[in-house]
Amino acid sequence: MKQIAGGVTAPKGYLAGGIACGIKKTGTPDLAIIASEVPAKAAAVFTKNKVQAAPIAISKQHLQNGEAQAIIVNSGNANACVGPIGDEIAVTMCQAAADYLNIAAEQVLVASTGVIGVPLPVEKIVTALSVHKDILSKQGSVAAATAIMTTDTFMKEVAVEFELEGTIVTIGGIAKGSGMIHPNMATMLGFITTDVAIEQPLLQKALSRACDLSFNRVTVDGDTSTNDSLFVLANGMAGNKIIDQVDKAYSQFVAALEYVCLELAKMLARDGEGATKFIEIQVNGAKNEHDAVTIAKSIATSSLVKTALFGEDANWGRILCAAGYSGVDFDPDQVSIALGDLLVYQNGVGIVFDEAKAKTILSQHDIVIRLEIGAGNAAATVWTCDFSYDYVKINGSYRT
Amino acid sequence: MKQIAGGVTAPKGYLAGGIACGIKKTGTPDLAIIASEVPAKAAAVFTKNKVQAAPIAISKQHLQNGEAQAIIVNSGNANACVGPIGDEIAVTMCQAAADYLNIAAEQVLVASTGVIGVPLPVEKIVTALSVHKDILSKQGSVAAATAIMTTDTFMKEVAVEFELEGTIVTIGGIAKGSGMIHPNMATMLGFITTDVAIEQPLLQKALSRACDLSFNRVTVDGDTSTNDSLFVLANGMAGNKIIDQVDKAYSQFVAALEYVCLELAKMLARDGEGATKFIEIQVNGAKNEHDAVTIAKSIATSSLVKTALFGEDANWGRILCAAGYSGVDFDPDQVSIALGDLLVYQNGVGIVFDEAKAKTILSQHDIVIRLEIGAGNAAATVWTCDFSYDYVKINGSYRT
Repeated sequence: MKQIAGGVTAPKGYLAGGIACGIKKTGTPDLAIIASEVPAKAAAVFTKNKVQAAPIAISKQHLQNGEAQAIIVNSGNANACVGPIGDEIAVTMCQAAADYLNIAAEQVLVASTGVIGVPLPVEKIVTALSVHKDILSKQGSVAAATAIMTTDTFMKEVAVEFELEGTIVTIGGIAKGSGMIHPNMATMLGFITTDVAIEQPLLQKALSRACDLSFNRVTVDGDTSTNDSLFVLANGMAGNKIIDQVDKAYSQFVAALEYVCLELAKMLARDGEGATKFIEIQVNGAKNEHDAVTIAKSIATSSLVKTALFGEDANWGRILCAAGYSGVDFDPDQVSIALGDLLVYQNGVGIVFDEAKAKTILSQHDIVIRLEIGAGNAAATVWTCDFSYDYVKINGSYRT
Repeated sequence: MKQIAGGVTAPKGYLAGGIACGIKKTGTPDLAIIASEVPAKAAAVFTKNKVQAAPIAISKQHLQNGEAQAIIVNSGNANACVGPIGDEIAVTMCQAAADYLNIAAEQVLVASTGVIGVPLPVEKIVTALSVHKDILSKQGSVAAATAIMTTDTFMKEVAVEFELEGTIVTIGGIAKGSGMIHPNMATMLGFITTDVAIEQPLLQKALSRACDLSFNRVTVDGDTSTNDSLFVLANGMAGNKIIDQVDKAYSQFVAALEYVCLELAKMLARDGEGATKFIEIQVNGAKNEHDAVTIAKSIATSSLVKTALFGEDANWGRILCAAGYSGVDFDPDQVSIALGDLLVYQNGVGIVFDEAKAKTILSQHDIVIRLEIGAGNAAATVWTCDFSYDYVKINGSYRT
């Protein structure tokens, strides 16, 4: 497997693009389309929030036959909590994309991100698509990745190619997300394209697992959004022997899909609102994977841990404290904690450590925190960022 | 029932005081003692964190006979996560207080608050108590309340008196807590004294219920500490007929105890680290109390809601979103949300509201958020504060 350029347009048979249609007051790009030349198998993972935006309901309907050919996405407005008109708006978006591409509206998936509770001026999308006729291109992944950004500070795209039984298969992806990022899922949108040939149930299975190991393991602020959506299209144009069972080829595909999802997910944490640090929390020696993930997420969502990391303060007591209230049963006297390669707490006792060395480690942009729980052999890693003045600034005046 | 002056020394037979013994680098008061003239029934509630500070283990031992006569507390050091020496230090603190008061060490409860993982220089406490012979007084509640502060910006004390079958009974309390405040319990210490005569099992029952309705319903940052302790001493000196069953007198006592705990708890939220707003979240119409509390706490701990309130931004979408990921099953189309008396969301649809009026409401220091869930008749209220630049500042450099 090797990383290549091109994002969602790297696999065979995909075009993409993005434009400004006027939903964002700033006039920056706010509308993206991704399209396959031919109908593709499609699968998705959505937010577990009880309050779900209208595009999710419509995309679920359009996924019922397991196929889709295009994705339309806007930023600047979440199309959430506006009543029944939200569904109509989402349908209108699909129809506009369908007319543009000359396909059926049911072949289009839809996603929105931005402010909640304000009706989306969908006529701006309809008008823009009737005016601009050259949105899509083979180089359009960057434009699409840019048009789905909200408070993101950089666009997020990745692509890989790998060999499957002698055939080159490609997977590409773009994502957005910066605040309101939390497991199950981040406030994020992720769109994956691939030219692999695969049965739809296996595509869904692969996406769900990849999502659990990637997007569901990053957190910025502990807030799970109403709009989170991760879509994958698989158009089969690579020409590989179709993956129709859980075999070696399936495993190879899943590994590549996981890689793409994880790279995108880590970019979300790295671009956390106001973030000055990228934090990797490794939990080893847990009784089982669920315990390891629970402890790691409890640390990753602690405001006290995150502000200490912003302040480059080796306050490991807060790390242990957050592990302690995670709800996982463990013996604190078996636990050890290291910041980078500096052991600060061992088997229940704080260690006298070199403060200068701690300062050097914590002054880096990328910081690894390692916990050994001493209860078993399971491990998990979670990614997050620190909590800075700018997070407060960005979120104190988002709506206005 | 009426509120009176005097804090923990308001009830008959209690003395208190606080001094600086040199644990805090700043030289501000860091040692408090509360003592009853006679042995008292004693009860306690402790943190549910898996990692617990040494004073908790020792206080639990000393509570085994249901009695205590004094409480010793230091600030500036949590005596947590330092290994077996922590227990020795907590015992030494009890012994020092016992020697000072000429009682048995087993009659002393102990609590600590401050930095985790650094051995507490207990010799400073022993020396201070051998030098200062006039710490305790009938006016000493303020000094004690001041000496237990860490990042608190004001001392927290309250007292009430009420009539129980013709006898005046008094309850007083002091508390500390500002950051690392979260239900079960806050990073807080609370000490309640009363002259009521009551059997110990009923005292424990009353305290547990009062704690659930007060300290367990405030949150500052979602971090549950290793040191949270709430103690109550009841020395019986009011001379009432002893409360030995769940009857009217018991209910009157519980109501007064709840009042004292709730007043102290609200002071914690009001003094939340960096807080510029005091937020009351009322959830009505839930299926049951547990659902109502869960929804209210999910909103109260949302960083996005709290930063929006800091920014005085009427971003009700974040409030609904936080309710949605609380884990409670409800129908968003039955929900209404009001900021103060301004309805902003009704039965699933955002309402066009007067932004100027919203701004006026959100510019107040005290803000009430009301949700109607439309699923039943249960209600709950939770208190919190906003999330400001200063929270980040205070917690970015706490240890150093």
